[in-house]
Amino acid sequence: MSYEQKLKELQLKLPQPPKPLATYVPAVLVGKLLFLSGVLPMRDGQVAFAGKLGRDLTVEQGMEAAKLSLLNVLAIAKQELGTLDRITRVVKVVGHVASAEGFVQQPQVLNGASDLLVAIFGEAGRHVRVAVGAAELPRGSAVELEVIFSVS
Amino acid sequence: MSYEQKLKELQLKLPQPPKPLATYVPAVLVGKLLFLSGVLPMRDGQVAFAGKLGRDLTVEQGMEAAKLSLLNVLAIAKQELGTLDRITRVVKVVGHVASAEGFVQQPQVLNGASDLLVAIFGEAGRHVRVAVGAAELPRGSAVELEVIFSVS
Amino acid sequence: MSYEQKLKELQLKLPQPPKPLATYVPAVLVGKLLFLSGVLPMRDGQVAFAGKLGRDLTVEQGMEAAKLSLLNVLAIAKQELGTLDRITRVVKVVGHVASAEGFVQQPQVLNGASDLLVAIFGEAGRHVRVAVGAAELPRGSAVELEVIFSVS
Repeated sequence: MSYEQKLKELQLKLPQPPKPLATYVPAVLVGKLLFLSGVLPMRDGQVAFAGKLGRDLTVEQGMEAAKLSLLNVLAIAKQELGTLDRITRVVKVVGHVASAEGFVQQPQVLNGASDLLVAIFGEAGRHVRVAVGAAELPRGSAVELEVIFSVS
Repeated sequence: MSYEQKLKELQLKLPQPPKPLATYVPAVLVGKLLFLSGVLPMRDGQVAFAGKLGRDLTVEQGMEAAKLSLLNVLAIAKQELGTLDRITRVVKVVGHVASAEGFVQQPQVLNGASDLLVAIFGEAGRHVRVAVGAAELPRGSAVELEVIFSVS
Repeated sequence: MSYEQKLKELQLKLPQPPKPLATYVPAVLVGKLLFLSGVLPMRDGQVAFAGKLGRDLTVEQGMEAAKLSLLNVLAIAKQELGTLDRITRVVKVVGHVASAEGFVQQPQVLNGASDLLVAIFGEAGRHVRVAVGAAELPRGSAVELEVIFSVS
C-alpha cells in the first residue's frame, strides 16, 4: 500500500503547508536528502499549541502538538515531492519541546510524532530522534520539529 | 556575478575566521555537503553580542548579532573552499538564540542572517531554517549559527 | 592501528548500546552518512549524570558525562556497523548541555567527548561541533550528544 493510501486509510488529512514568513524556504533537496525547515503545530495559519510543557500543557496536549506538527511536516514534503510515495526513509527528527523548569518528558511528547511516522511509513518510518527541551520557541509554540527525509 | 564580487558590491568584509578553542574543527566536507561548527558573533576574537534576547538585547541588536555570525560563517567557508563561488546552495541554518523567559521572536532575529544570505547568494541562498530559543550559549553569546552548505 | 585496537589500548570498554524507548531507532545509514539518535550518559540502563551544569554538577562532572555519552555513541555505532573500523570520519557532534541560568561553559563540558574522539580516531576524529545550552533534557540528563559519522 502506498503512503498516500495509508494516510487515507488512517483518515488523516494534511493541512495547507505553512508558508515561511521570511527569506527561507520550507524544504531543500540535496542529492537524496530532503531537509525541512523547523515546523510548528500550525492550524489555519495559527500556532495551535502555545505554552510550555510542565506548566501550560499536559503531556497529552504536547503529544497532540507533536502530531499536528508532523502533519504539517508531511504537507510540506508532499508539496515539495508531489507525493509522499517518493519518500524512501524518514531519516531524522529533532524535536524541540518548550520546557518549563523540571519538565523532562520530552520523549513522551515526541512519541506523538514518532508513532504516527511508523503508522504511515512502517519500517521506512523508523527514524533517529533527538529530544531536547528548549527555553523558548518561535511564536510561543510548544513544539518544533526538524526533519530529514531520504527520497527516490 | 560571482558571490565574491557580490560581497564586494555589498561592501561586506569578512572577518578573520574564528579559531576553534579545542579538538574540533571549523568545517568538515563529506561528499558535496560542507558542515560547519557552531558560529558565534565574533569580532576581533571576542563575542561582540553577549546576553539574552528579551532581557539584555533588542531584536535589532539580535539581528546584528545574526548578521555578524553569518559573516564569520562565510569567512570559515571561504577558508575551507578557497572561494565562496564553490557554494552551490545554502542548505540549512539552525539558529540558536539565547532567550529570556517569554522571548519568542527568534525568527526576526535570524532574519539578520537569512536576508544577508539571499542578498549574497540569490536563489542559491534560500535555505531551510530552524529557529530555537536556547537557555544559554557558549561564552554568553546571544546567537549561534549551525550551517550546512552544498558545494561543487 | 585500527580504531578497535586503539580503544583497547586506551583501556576503554564500550557499554551495552542503549535501547530506544519508543518507535525510533538508534541509527540510520543513508548513503555514506550514519545519523545517530540523541545519546545520554547511560550506565546500566540509567542516566548516570542528571541535573544541570552551573547548579547541580561541576564542569568536571559534565566532562565525564560527555565522555560517557560518547562511549554510548560508539557502542551504537559498533552495533550498527559491526566494527568501528568502518568509520571514515566523525562528521558532526551537536552537544546539548542542560544549563542553569548563567552557565556558559558548554564547550569545556563537551571537550570530554571531543578529546576522546581525537584520542581514538586521530585526524578522522576531528569533527565540527555545536555546543548549546538546553533548558531541560530527557530524564533530567546533564548532556545529550547528536552525532553524524561518515562510513565506508
